[in-house]
Amino acid sequence: MTTYKAPLRDYRFVLNELFDAGTVLPALPGYEEATPETVEAILEEGAKLCEEVLFPLNRSGDEEGCTYENGVVHTPKGFKEAYETYRRNGWTALAAEPEWGGQGLPHTLGFLMSEMVASANLSFGMYPGLSHGAIDALQQHGSPSLKRRYLPRLVEGVWSGTMCLTEPHCGTDLGLLRTKAVPVDGDAPGGGEDRRYRITGTKIFISAGEHDLTENILHLVLARLPDAPPGVKGISLFLVPKFLVKDDSGAPGVRNGVRCGSIEHKMGIKASSTCVMNFDEAEGYLVGAPHKGMRCMFTMMNAARFGVGMQGLGIAETAYQSARAYALDRLQGRSLAGAREPEKAADPIIVHPDVRRMLLTQKAYVEGMRALAAWVAIELDVSLKHPDPERREEADDLVALLMPIVKAFFTDAGFEAANLGVQVMGGHGYIREHGMEQLVRDARITQLYEGANGIQALDLVGRKMPMHAGRLLRRFFHPVERFIAEAGQADPRMAEFVMPLAKAFARLQQLTLHVAQQGMAKPEEAGAAASDYLRIFALVALGYMWARTAQAALAKADAADGADGDADPEASFYKAKLATARFYMARVLPQHTANAAAIMAGAKPLMELEAAAF
Amino acid sequence: MTTYKAPLRDYRFVLNELFDAGTVLPALPGYEEATPETVEAILEEGAKLCEEVLFPLNRSGDEEGCTYENGVVHTPKGFKEAYETYRRNGWTALAAEPEWGGQGLPHTLGFLMSEMVASANLSFGMYPGLSHGAIDALQQHGSPSLKRRYLPRLVEGVWSGTMCLTEPHCGTDLGLLRTKAVPVDGDAPGGGEDRRYRITGTKIFISAGEHDLTENILHLVLARLPDAPPGVKGISLFLVPKFLVKDDSGAPGVRNGVRCGSIEHKMGIKASSTCVMNFDEAEGYLVGAPHKGMRCMFTMMNAARFGVGMQGLGIAETAYQSARAYALDRLQGRSLAGAREPEKAADPIIVHPDVRRMLLTQKAYVEGMRALAAWVAIELDVSLKHPDPERREEADDLVALLMPIVKAFFTDAGFEAANLGVQVMGGHGYIREHGMEQLVRDARITQLYEGANGIQALDLVGRKMPMHAGRLLRRFFHPVERFIAEAGQADPRMAEFVMPLAKAFARLQQLTLHVAQQGMAKPEEAGAAASDYLRIFALVALGYMWARTAQAALAKADAADGADGDADPEASFYKAKLATARFYMARVLPQHTANAAAIMAGAKPLMELEAAAF
Repeated sequence: MTTYKAPLRDYRFVLNELFDAGTVLPALPGYEEATPETVEAILEEGAKLCEEVLFPLNRSGDEEGCTYENGVVHTPKGFKEAYETYRRNGWTALAAEPEWGGQGLPHTLGFLMSEMVASANLSFGMYPGLSHGAIDALQQHGSPSLKRRYLPRLVEGVWSGTMCLTEPHCGTDLGLLRTKAVPVDGDAPGGGEDRRYRITGTKIFISAGEHDLTENILHLVLARLPDAPPGVKGISLFLVPKFLVKDDSGAPGVRNGVRCGSIEHKMGIKASSTCVMNFDEAEGYLVGAPHKGMRCMFTMMNAARFGVGMQGLGIAETAYQSARAYALDRLQGRSLAGAREPEKAADPIIVHPDVRRMLLTQKAYVEGMRALAAWVAIELDVSLKHPDPERREEADDLVALLMPIVKAFFTDAGFEAANLGVQVMGGHGYIREHGMEQLVRDARITQLYEGANGIQALDLVGRKMPMHAGRLLRRFFHPVERFIAEAGQADPRMAEFVMPLAKAFARLQQLTLHVAQQGMAKPEEAGAAASDYLRIFALVALGYMWARTAQAALAKADAADGADGDADPEASFYKAKLATARFYMARVLPQHTANAAAIMAGAKPLMELEAAAF
Repeated sequence: MTTYKAPLRDYRFVLNELFDAGTVLPALPGYEEATPETVEAILEEGAKLCEEVLFPLNRSGDEEGCTYENGVVHTPKGFKEAYETYRRNGWTALAAEPEWGGQGLPHTLGFLMSEMVASANLSFGMYPGLSHGAIDALQQHGSPSLKRRYLPRLVEGVWSGTMCLTEPHCGTDLGLLRTKAVPVDGDAPGGGEDRRYRITGTKIFISAGEHDLTENILHLVLARLPDAPPGVKGISLFLVPKFLVKDDSGAPGVRNGVRCGSIEHKMGIKASSTCVMNFDEAEGYLVGAPHKGMRCMFTMMNAARFGVGMQGLGIAETAYQSARAYALDRLQGRSLAGAREPEKAADPIIVHPDVRRMLLTQKAYVEGMRALAAWVAIELDVSLKHPDPERREEADDLVALLMPIVKAFFTDAGFEAANLGVQVMGGHGYIREHGMEQLVRDARITQLYEGANGIQALDLVGRKMPMHAGRLLRRFFHPVERFIAEAGQADPRMAEFVMPLAKAFARLQQLTLHVAQQGMAKPEEAGAAASDYLRIFALVALGYMWARTAQAALAKADAADGADGDADPEASFYKAKLATARFYMARVLPQHTANAAAIMAGAKPLMELEAAAF
């Protein structure tokens, strides 16, 4: 059986011992209340909700799934009540602007909560998760009247949102999209009311496109105006409500011309409705400027990709906790070093090196990713709120650079961790009732949506790497360089962590230069290197996190010296951090050599074979 | 949508161009009829059955699954008719002994057929697959009367078999098993009738334990006799029929005391029934000597593990074919080197380096594994039938050595290939209707059953490596050494294949020495190295296959020189072999550096953390 307790101790560690969220966040204008005490209290509340309300619905939600009948979608038993609890407790409003009823708390908090929600019930998380995107879009790009009319209910969670991008013939390549938006004759642009458009087209893979959790659903739809230039430069963003709203009272009016045609039957996230949405002259309103829809999408993309990365992390956490519990409990075979628990029929399988290899891989991924996520999340808040534009730019650079890595690596590692969970459980992991295989099926989507992981890799090498002549890269390289130079000298015990990091980091720098040079001459070289480059970057980024973790843990171990050793859970926490850091340096980080070799092989072995000969 | 055409051309290549099955097999006593022509005709018949009968039932079988009601299991619609066709066409009898109605054909043929069946419909393949094990057990260990009474119907396929090993508290560690066998008073051992025993206990995860495809089901059950010593040395093997059979006419009599208590709801292979079997004083008969049940199991294990390895290969083949078809068809984005098909809205996604990376990884796995499988299969037949005992021993050594590699690596690669298939399809890969995600779910079991892959790795380092002072290892090392020494000299064009192989092979040899020495001093060191050692061994074994493939392809390309280049499908076949060999050497084989680093890190990073601190 799967098991989940929110990792509150580790949140405290990454926020306040590894980084200085307790100082940085409350110093940002508007986040004054985000003190460590408040943050901890909120996370505790969130933990309770996830453990007690959402997690118990995860298995039943998977078995029952969503059902579709005649345009109506029903979520599984218990989801409506759980959503109502979630909403009433203010979670939909967490990071939204106070002007629209939001709590105006840092996004850092929202991302940690989204990890917990994903750990507990990924399918459930899709419903409020999609609303976040819609809230962001309207807050940043909506007209004042659109904001007034739609944001309060969206923030309150009585309405929800969607993002309607994909069409049957286009997903990655949005330049091909065909959905049309025609202005209604006689509506004057710039009047008191927003000008109306008639939206017509078919969108697929629309998460939360139709469901029974909220009174209204606001679709944010990419479509082409009649005078649109071809390709991605002719795409505009529209708000299309399921029920038309005719005043600011929030009363939903008549049904709009948008209808769910069917839902997909999927590998996983079965309790999340994935809809075909048919727009038939549906009334909609322009969000942002005409033909600038892609720009509106891009501003939301960081948050959305971060959210998906946190899903990977969240699933990895549950897989780890569940595999650990099984490995401590299941008796099978004897330790190779002689029976550990001779009074029992067999030893618990955690004595076996190969089982430990799997558990430590999960643990090293989970805690390393969480540290990296905390860093990126804090910088994301800084990039939005810091008074100093230089500091904002610096933070924004780092976030933009690391986002494809967070999205792709976290989801790859989440899938891997879920599969390791199954492997630890053996045949029992394959049985639906035990819940572990669901984590594999649910995790699998995170590598595909919000830009498949290959697209993330292209974003890294093709956009982020060359941007501003490598400025984004330096935002990461410089602090790592500094750390390597200083940490080893300050404490000789750090050598075992700093040396492997330094070696991998040097390789990353060489490869960066190589890929940049090759890619400039021949874009296919960059494309051929992309996935391996992203992975080596991620391994180094996690290596940096683990070296810093070791540094923090050593300092704490010093402080705790003299305390009552093993029995003390705090001492045990830091000892585990050090042991996991050693495991990461010895067993995970050296995997970068494989990626380095693949990069150096270049594009030729990939491009040589003609398509027809495959 | 998934697609499948049996790779008959590649079978011809591996059997007759890469290896000399056409000479070796018909030279074995009893296999005189297995000429290349006959083998090809049989494979063609098998291909037709798999493509036209079994493949079309794969999706529907997954959706419908098996159903259980009151002890009775129904297979999905169409399975009974398909099984009847399979049986009537003689496939259950293919490799069985002619004495019992078998066709007495080489196992090589059986294994290639099992690949095709797994490609088409893994769930279906479980039913006849489990019978193979029962046939082997009875042929090798059954008393003459048991053989006479049970084998003809089993070989004919009107009855089927199972292997009942696992119990709720023991899977890997069979020493813990509790099922009891009590001799019936008054039955004399060694009489004309086989002595009767009363079998009582619960077995779980029993594939094909109950179903509606055959008139009777013969369970081969591990259990303890009253005087059994504890542990694995006190386990005996029993035959327990579902319906008692009282004479050799084959008429099933009264129902025996064995009943299916429930079926598991699983991640995949949903059309294969996985049963809890309750034995309540069921009548059974001893197979082999008392307390020697594990030995009987071991003799069957090579074949069973080979069969599971072929399942991994089979799924990888279907995933590759389906991803290739999608990548050639799906238009999305433009080639980084400029539009390839400017007249279309976009280029097919096979132009993208990262998509090619995924397809070529699948292709390099599939064809490399098939070559290795052919080698092992031919040697398996040699080990059973060759008149020269030295040649038999040599073959048996190689098979024993490579079997854990075939089982673990093929199934890991099968799962990886299925996931790459999903990734190539993007979100469409996640939709059940399209079939690709089913391959992921179905493939996942192959890494778990018939000895989880971690157990295979322990078998390799703990049993096969030290066996006969390393004699088994030399059966593989020597031919590779010879090949490396000779192939490069014979043809300078081979250097690009031989050099990377030589480098990886040298590393494997060093690591072998290292693991053997470390493991001798401290078994946990061997355990810590096991999984990475198996993988590096597999990468080198496939590297050897790809270098030999390149050699064969170069020779053929020479012969075809002057023929009409690209338009000739034969020339294209060999060009693809060479390009894939280059890809393997450049991009896959170098992955061994990661495994080497992990091995050299030793056991300490795995064993340091105390269990409670995980």
